[in-house]
Amino acid sequence: MPKSAKPAKGNAIIGQSGGPTAVINQSLVGVVQALHDFPAIRKIYGMRHGVNGLTRGDVVDLTKVKDKKLELVAASPSAALGSSRDKPDAEYCAKILEQCKALDIRSFFYIGGNDSSDTARIVGELADASGYEMHCLHVPKTVDNDLMGNDHTPGFPSAARFVATAFMADSLDNRSLPGVKINVVMGRNAGFLTGASALARELNGDPDGGPHLIYLPEVPFDTDKFVADVQAVYDRLGRCQVAVSEGVQTLAGTPLLTTLFAGQTDAHGNVQLSGTGALGDALAELVKARVQPRSGGGKLRVRADTFGYLQRSWPYPSPIDAKEARAAGKHAVKLAAKGTHSGSVTINRAKGKTYKAELGVQDLKNVAAKTRHMPAEYIEGTTGVSKAFLEYLRPLVGGMAEVGVL
Amino acid sequence: MPKSAKPAKGNAIIGQSGGPTAVINQSLVGVVQALHDFPAIRKIYGMRHGVNGLTRGDVVDLTKVKDKKLELVAASPSAALGSSRDKPDAEYCAKILEQCKALDIRSFFYIGGNDSSDTARIVGELADASGYEMHCLHVPKTVDNDLMGNDHTPGFPSAARFVATAFMADSLDNRSLPGVKINVVMGRNAGFLTGASALARELNGDPDGGPHLIYLPEVPFDTDKFVADVQAVYDRLGRCQVAVSEGVQTLAGTPLLTTLFAGQTDAHGNVQLSGTGALGDALAELVKARVQPRSGGGKLRVRADTFGYLQRSWPYPSPIDAKEARAAGKHAVKLAAKGTHSGSVTINRAKGKTYKAELGVQDLKNVAAKTRHMPAEYIEGTTGVSKAFLEYLRPLVGGMAEVGVL
Repeated sequence: MPKSAKPAKGNAIIGQSGGPTAVINQSLVGVVQALHDFPAIRKIYGMRHGVNGLTRGDVVDLTKVKDKKLELVAASPSAALGSSRDKPDAEYCAKILEQCKALDIRSFFYIGGNDSSDTARIVGELADASGYEMHCLHVPKTVDNDLMGNDHTPGFPSAARFVATAFMADSLDNRSLPGVKINVVMGRNAGFLTGASALARELNGDPDGGPHLIYLPEVPFDTDKFVADVQAVYDRLGRCQVAVSEGVQTLAGTPLLTTLFAGQTDAHGNVQLSGTGALGDALAELVKARVQPRSGGGKLRVRADTFGYLQRSWPYPSPIDAKEARAAGKHAVKLAAKGTHSGSVTINRAKGKTYKAELGVQDLKNVAAKTRHMPAEYIEGTTGVSKAFLEYLRPLVGGMAEVGVL
Repeated sequence: MPKSAKPAKGNAIIGQSGGPTAVINQSLVGVVQALHDFPAIRKIYGMRHGVNGLTRGDVVDLTKVKDKKLELVAASPSAALGSSRDKPDAEYCAKILEQCKALDIRSFFYIGGNDSSDTARIVGELADASGYEMHCLHVPKTVDNDLMGNDHTPGFPSAARFVATAFMADSLDNRSLPGVKINVVMGRNAGFLTGASALARELNGDPDGGPHLIYLPEVPFDTDKFVADVQAVYDRLGRCQVAVSEGVQTLAGTPLLTTLFAGQTDAHGNVQLSGTGALGDALAELVKARVQPRSGGGKLRVRADTFGYLQRSWPYPSPIDAKEARAAGKHAVKLAAKGTHSGSVTINRAKGKTYKAELGVQDLKNVAAKTRHMPAEYIEGTTGVSKAFLEYLRPLVGGMAEVGVL
């Protein structure tokens, strides 16, 4: 458990990091509003582009921002303070701490994924080592849903809602003009978001609706099997809608895309998976070359869409996600106020028949730079997700458009 | 003007054709509901996959489908009867007419774009020539908004709403993690949909928000100028969001994509522009190779998204579009009931301060196989749209999410 310390007081700073989401500003506003309600806090600073801006002294004073403005920001997708892909090492974190000391920061709030929690961890440890009293709280955020110690993380339910809606609509499109349709979904290491496509089957009012095949990064991807899978569905239905995670890996454990595409890497040394249609196009070419059309059916119609950044930025979030993201931000302040020295806010599911979230805290070490994968009980066979996963997912995404077919 | 004839009676048939939209089922339901209210009509048939199904006798009886079911279908994106990309010639149309005679069809309703109106025209002329009394009415539909004789066409406002929302959200994402972001938008020949991205600037609450550059198919695309345009915006703002029509053409008048990509062609002999990320990826490579990062700013971050089929199938349409699409379907039946022998329903804007649509009819010849482009007064310079275009567009898309930045 996180060390206990004196309640926070003095100045506070907040930053946003990693890929933005539809609700990361809800968490920002949650922190700011809770700090507003907390008389021991004097100044509230915001980092421009996370710790990248902070090290350059690029901060903004949020102490007196009005609630009306904050509510507008909360409803906006993407990181209103700007985000950063930097992954600070000890030297970088020493600079962060130096700036914190210069601003007399005694509470450090950082909203982000596992890399961001690692930053909070290092900065906190450096502060401790130098005898500087500072609370370091991490607020979870990631559309990939891959943080340890959480039932789910803010940002994921909204992205899942987008993906399920998109597959529902696209399945009806594919029913209108049949063929093979491949949709590439975000999720570098974890298949939660790609798996969310399965929810479309309950929505599209079509007993034969897609997605018919789901390829998760947790299940090794074999191109021969992929071609056979698509052929079998196509032979049966005359169409096939496929969900593929951008992070699918070959049997040898290398990302499929790296075998096809010498891409750009980000500051973490990761290959660029998003912001390119390369994987979808390569799989479409594979299908065109190797899947046989129906006899007399002419040329096979094959299309690929890569859903891209809209998955994380679509401005109509899951209502529950928006609420929980706000609550997670407020909870971080509550923890600091009660004397929690450092930690990462958690969201877990309360026991009971109806869905209810329970906020908590875990050690930064439990979440920092680790990756949670889809548990085995959420995966079914090699191209599907289980009922248990759909039950897990359903309450998170909220109600959706009702549709029907003739 | 369309020839006047006796009021329609007997059996009716309806089909959907071309790329589906978010509201093409509204028009379908408009036709069916109006036929239900029209006692002279006996049987109502639906073509499966347009005239392709009809020639094979694949029709469905819609005479007794209940209103509750129809309303669910109306709210669903994509063509509930199935669609077709066939472009029938005289021989094909003779088969269509043969099937119509076999089913004693006296009213032929076809929902689609300019190719579909050409089918209605040929079938109608063949019927006339053989002395077979049949009303042939075309109901307009296309997200490209490229039909002659209309202020706009059903399907376009909903797609424009999706594109504007997507650019708004993506601009905030690009503000969070700055770089060059290229988004490819549908529209083979007309730039209306790509131009709709400009509406995002009024929405994203960011005075420096995107799209910063808009490339329409009506304006010749020059790669050197494109690189210089991006460089200039990037130098000024440290980021650049670009809207590119999938149909942009080189100075020589060939689609940019055909110079980069030996793609699949559809039944009309058109090159495949949608369902591939090729154009966006090629432009991203161009920017990576030729646009200079800021001094000391490290590697330039360049991403491309191709919005793909979600533009035409997103199941949350513009409310006005949904209403007008329904009304257009009903109007076609009203025309037949009043004795209009053949024609294409039109939507034009009534004079006056507040937006109001006026339904009418035009000769099939005026719309068949012709393409309407963005008028010159809607285009500003080589990378923008005019205020007049935004004024034209605003009432069509409806109210959207309110957002703000810090």
